[in-house]
Amino acid sequence: MPTFFVERRNIEGDTALLSGTEAGHMLRSLRLSPGDSFFAFDEAGNRYRMRILEATSRSLRAEILESSPPEPPPAIEITLLVGLPKADKLDFILEKATELGCSRVIPFRSSRTIPRLGPQEARRKRMRWERVALAAAKQCGSGRVPEIPGLLSYPEAVAAGARSEGRVVLYEGVGRFGLKATLSGMGSPKSVSLLVGPEGGFSEDEVREAEAMGFVRAGLGQRILRVDTAALAALCMVTYHFEAEA
Amino acid sequence: MPTFFVERRNIEGDTALLSGTEAGHMLRSLRLSPGDSFFAFDEAGNRYRMRILEATSRSLRAEILESSPPEPPPAIEITLLVGLPKADKLDFILEKATELGCSRVIPFRSSRTIPRLGPQEARRKRMRWERVALAAAKQCGSGRVPEIPGLLSYPEAVAAGARSEGRVVLYEGVGRFGLKATLSGMGSPKSVSLLVGPEGGFSEDEVREAEAMGFVRAGLGQRILRVDTAALAALCMVTYHFEAEA
Repeated sequence: MPTFFVERRNIEGDTALLSGTEAGHMLRSLRLSPGDSFFAFDEAGNRYRMRILEATSRSLRAEILESSPPEPPPAIEITLLVGLPKADKLDFILEKATELGCSRVIPFRSSRTIPRLGPQEARRKRMRWERVALAAAKQCGSGRVPEIPGLLSYPEAVAAGARSEGRVVLYEGVGRFGLKATLSGMGSPKSVSLLVGPEGGFSEDEVREAEAMGFVRAGLGQRILRVDTAALAALCMVTYHFEAEA
Repeated sequence: MPTFFVERRNIEGDTALLSGTEAGHMLRSLRLSPGDSFFAFDEAGNRYRMRILEATSRSLRAEILESSPPEPPPAIEITLLVGLPKADKLDFILEKATELGCSRVIPFRSSRTIPRLGPQEARRKRMRWERVALAAAKQCGSGRVPEIPGLLSYPEAVAAGARSEGRVVLYEGVGRFGLKATLSGMGSPKSVSLLVGPEGGFSEDEVREAEAMGFVRAGLGQRILRVDTAALAALCMVTYHFEAEA
């Protein structure tokens, strides 16, 4: 899936000039050569399918085979509420959530959240999270960065998530999948919040607190998933469920 | 999602004794206490929902509220064929694929694969991949480790994937999703192969080579996904698609 960045000022008519590290990467690392096609996007989010016409050692000229306007906003606005995991797992979740078009990622601390962050560290982390999301948005060429309001308390997170039409709390139950039935029962919401517990899981009280705010309990089946896997899997599944057939 | 390991010999009737690092983790890191419930599994893959009855500083006694037999084999056997990515990304893919119940992971080298491994390094890597998958299987309590035949050539990988009833090659097309229609058109296969390109993408020839072996081209839409994200997203989506409603 080779996708590259091209500056708009280097596009003229139906040809584009790529140079610098981008061209170097394509020609040297990936060994692309004249005749090979690739995808590109520009700083406005326009997308292109191109084919290399000619290449020198450091730049290449490509023909635009197809172009399409910037990515439309996602069909469904997904808010991912996730119990702050240990180490850099949230960076990973943010990177993937950005690529997958998630609209909002809200890390929260709850009774069984393991990392304890002071207010200053939480602010530093938030800046880091914003950088990670921005880099991922740039890398995947969407220009769409999820909103990250910073680390919230559990009640704040649940209240923020309750603004979505569809609300799911992922809760590990022995042997029940449930997510499919839950999503099917939602009709066609414009927004969905996914509430995923921290490594220590939710307490029963916390699940009930979410249910009181309209969250529906659903499981991912037999699987015992790490926080990051659960968050990502749920995000992919919800995206898939509400994706229009092409 | 607190899930812990309990040895079968420490289960008697409807109570279980947990001690050692497992109990220490539960009591000290997660601050669980009498009355809290949690999930556990034993070495045979039996699953339990338990509630803490009493705890000392280093061990705890729990009541079994519910138990269920080992996880049945996945409803659908998924083979993930993935172009060898850079650095340790395959470790990550293996970890997540194992958690998600993937049956087989086959890394391959194709024309645009960036890492070049000699035969000795490939053997070393394979041992590492097996360790990663095993650790993930243990961690998620499934005992089910995906088969990893080692690094194959592209034709070998395509041939291995062609043994599945359903065959999809993920190919980035501008603006087409396609996966849903492709999966819906498959009916109820017992096995599905997912072919995901390396960082450099597939060449048109390679896509045609896969098509000649019965793979159907499908996209993941507007998204420009990293190899690991694409592999994982496709895996989650296929799992979701064929998952029975609970």
